[in-house]
Amino acid sequence: MDLKDLVFNKALEAKEGAIEARRLSSDLKNTLLVEMADSFIKRANEIISENQKDVQAAEKKGLSKAMIDRLTLTRSRIEEMSKGLVEVAQLADPVGEITKMWKRPNGMMVGKMRVPIGVIGIIYESRPNVTADATSLCFKSGNAVILRGGSEAINSNKILVSIMRSILKENNLKEGIITYIDTTDREAINEMLKLDCLIDLIIPRGGEGLIRTVVENSRIPVLKHYKGVCHVYVDNEADLKMAEDICFNAKVQRPGTCNAMETMLVHKDISKDFLPKMAKRFIDSKVQLKGCKESCSILEGIELAQEEDYYKEYLDLVLNIKIVADIDEAMNHISKYSSSHSDAIVTKNYSKAMTFLKEVDSSAVFVNASTRLNDGYQFGLGAEIGISTDKIHARGPMGLEELTSTKFIVFGDGQLRT
Amino acid sequence: MDLKDLVFNKALEAKEGAIEARRLSSDLKNTLLVEMADSFIKRANEIISENQKDVQAAEKKGLSKAMIDRLTLTRSRIEEMSKGLVEVAQLADPVGEITKMWKRPNGMMVGKMRVPIGVIGIIYESRPNVTADATSLCFKSGNAVILRGGSEAINSNKILVSIMRSILKENNLKEGIITYIDTTDREAINEMLKLDCLIDLIIPRGGEGLIRTVVENSRIPVLKHYKGVCHVYVDNEADLKMAEDICFNAKVQRPGTCNAMETMLVHKDISKDFLPKMAKRFIDSKVQLKGCKESCSILEGIELAQEEDYYKEYLDLVLNIKIVADIDEAMNHISKYSSSHSDAIVTKNYSKAMTFLKEVDSSAVFVNASTRLNDGYQFGLGAEIGISTDKIHARGPMGLEELTSTKFIVFGDGQLRT
Repeated sequence: MDLKDLVFNKALEAKEGAIEARRLSSDLKNTLLVEMADSFIKRANEIISENQKDVQAAEKKGLSKAMIDRLTLTRSRIEEMSKGLVEVAQLADPVGEITKMWKRPNGMMVGKMRVPIGVIGIIYESRPNVTADATSLCFKSGNAVILRGGSEAINSNKILVSIMRSILKENNLKEGIITYIDTTDREAINEMLKLDCLIDLIIPRGGEGLIRTVVENSRIPVLKHYKGVCHVYVDNEADLKMAEDICFNAKVQRPGTCNAMETMLVHKDISKDFLPKMAKRFIDSKVQLKGCKESCSILEGIELAQEEDYYKEYLDLVLNIKIVADIDEAMNHISKYSSSHSDAIVTKNYSKAMTFLKEVDSSAVFVNASTRLNDGYQFGLGAEIGISTDKIHARGPMGLEELTSTKFIVFGDGQLRT
Repeated sequence: MDLKDLVFNKALEAKEGAIEARRLSSDLKNTLLVEMADSFIKRANEIISENQKDVQAAEKKGLSKAMIDRLTLTRSRIEEMSKGLVEVAQLADPVGEITKMWKRPNGMMVGKMRVPIGVIGIIYESRPNVTADATSLCFKSGNAVILRGGSEAINSNKILVSIMRSILKENNLKEGIITYIDTTDREAINEMLKLDCLIDLIIPRGGEGLIRTVVENSRIPVLKHYKGVCHVYVDNEADLKMAEDICFNAKVQRPGTCNAMETMLVHKDISKDFLPKMAKRFIDSKVQLKGCKESCSILEGIELAQEEDYYKEYLDLVLNIKIVADIDEAMNHISKYSSSHSDAIVTKNYSKAMTFLKEVDSSAVFVNASTRLNDGYQFGLGAEIGISTDKIHARGPMGLEELTSTKFIVFGDGQLRT
């Protein structure tokens, strides 16, 4: 069978699965998720042995230690994956929720009901736990999923998918509800992206290169996650101790994440008080500082930040520091350099807090809290399939609700259009 | 200047406009919409004279009467356009609405706030009133709009845009808030569709060919409106008089629209009672009937429907009639042939009504009401920019809310990620 047919048939299987998936009761979905979670534990040895094939191939190919670490499934990681499925089972089912309902002058009641999207395609890279995470969220929200994982993880992904499908089969459900494109041919992605007749949404999870390819080639709507260039603005009316803790947390707690701070903006009036103590704390934690001219004159010995540094997502212990004249200069800087992911203000002034909240156009805007809190679990969405930097359909952390659509429902008693 | 630069510069102008547009107060937006409306009336002669250039060119090219009619702006049509702007001014502004807010265990308050999307591209065909309608909705929802209208209407579109821009200018606002790509070169559309760095959403309005081109070439998210193949199922437990009125309305009231019925499904137990009277009413109104074998045996002399007829959007006084064994056969038929636009059941049975509402996966599902009611005005959204047949972001009639996105806002008092 040629590649085009292979991908088309897989997508067709998923589409048929979707028709069944959207009708499943919450109880049944929850039971099956728990069965899948149990099955991961029972069959952990099999998973580890398939995963070892991938790990050995990666070592042979000379992939980096970090890549191999991300690829490796240990017993404790399998337990975590299994726990993740049980947690998704415990979340509320969004399907069937009536989000609003109102009465029209002609007496008809019009409402909006949450419904599954249909077939969701997930295109991802090396971490095999995405296979379980993404599948559980799509399944819980009544969708079928069609997965295309990285070629380095193919054996791991196949065993995980086969375990989950066997639970579907045991329960006489269509296995197409969870479909895996089991070829390492990269062209499969392009074939997949043409099938807007069968696939309703694509969520790419991986580096910028993967996301760019998907956006450029997809006829299917894409929800994507570009980079996070995040800011904290420390106002002259900030509680400086709070500002220090927030900035430290935003940069240091986990610098490799998209919601970590990359540039700290500091009001000029408090810069001499605030910066030396703050800088010491950063330097003690091995953060490399780059400053604007003014901050370099306060903090001797730090590097001068270049224009291009303000656009960078370091994902590392590196931080730009810029002194600004006021909140307007801070907001203008954010408007120019921010990737509209997560931006924060620290201030005790009510009107500046409200101005910042309204004016800054980012997926999450914080007053007196760390940008690191931009996260589905932290926000209480229960779980997240990613943080969207798009403006269409979903912006910010995407939970189960974001994996649904709505339809209008109308209760009439004979209404006509006149 | 080459085409690529021309389109890029226009989009850049719109992007700069968007930064201003999202900050405008509701009061100012409403005032400006009313000023634009007044200006259309004051400058009606200019509009008509520019429009006449388009009409004459169209006549010279030998365009159809229907096309020329759609293109023509009379004084009364200008008054309607003007009234449309005033009506949009009277609608509630969705920007800034907090759709939810909740407290997290760490004390932070998390909310979702409606914000404008940014730059919305509208690609449309011959009707110049779209220029005013679409602009007013984008403007009211705090977005900048970049318009690309059909080449046949270019003079009409340009004068309408120039009138609206002059109101912006008089009020010292960026004219880029309303931007028109004033070239008839079709390649401009493709250039536009590449600019995902500047344009946030594309809404195509026109025939299937235009929409297909846009979907195949766009890197920007698209909200589209494909065809409507709509059904009414008359159950054996229907109030037959109500069913007759609903079916008649759904087919005859305005057959050229996307929410008109194309196939009537009738339960076998009432077909002999229902069909003869119903068919007479249709035939009296010049509806051409095509029936399944069983209906042809009840209604002598009507044509036999072919398999492909059930997929057709007639947009005309033509109707398929099919007799089904029960609600399941009706829903299976809908699942196979419907374009998931608007589908209705007529029944007095509670559980069948609820089953149909839940199971049928269309943008609007009706119990005991005409499919013709699937419309932004009828549903009370105030105005509509189209009826989305997509599942992402917006499904069904799109009003002002659907032209917004949301962002998360967080009120903290020092919360950190731990």
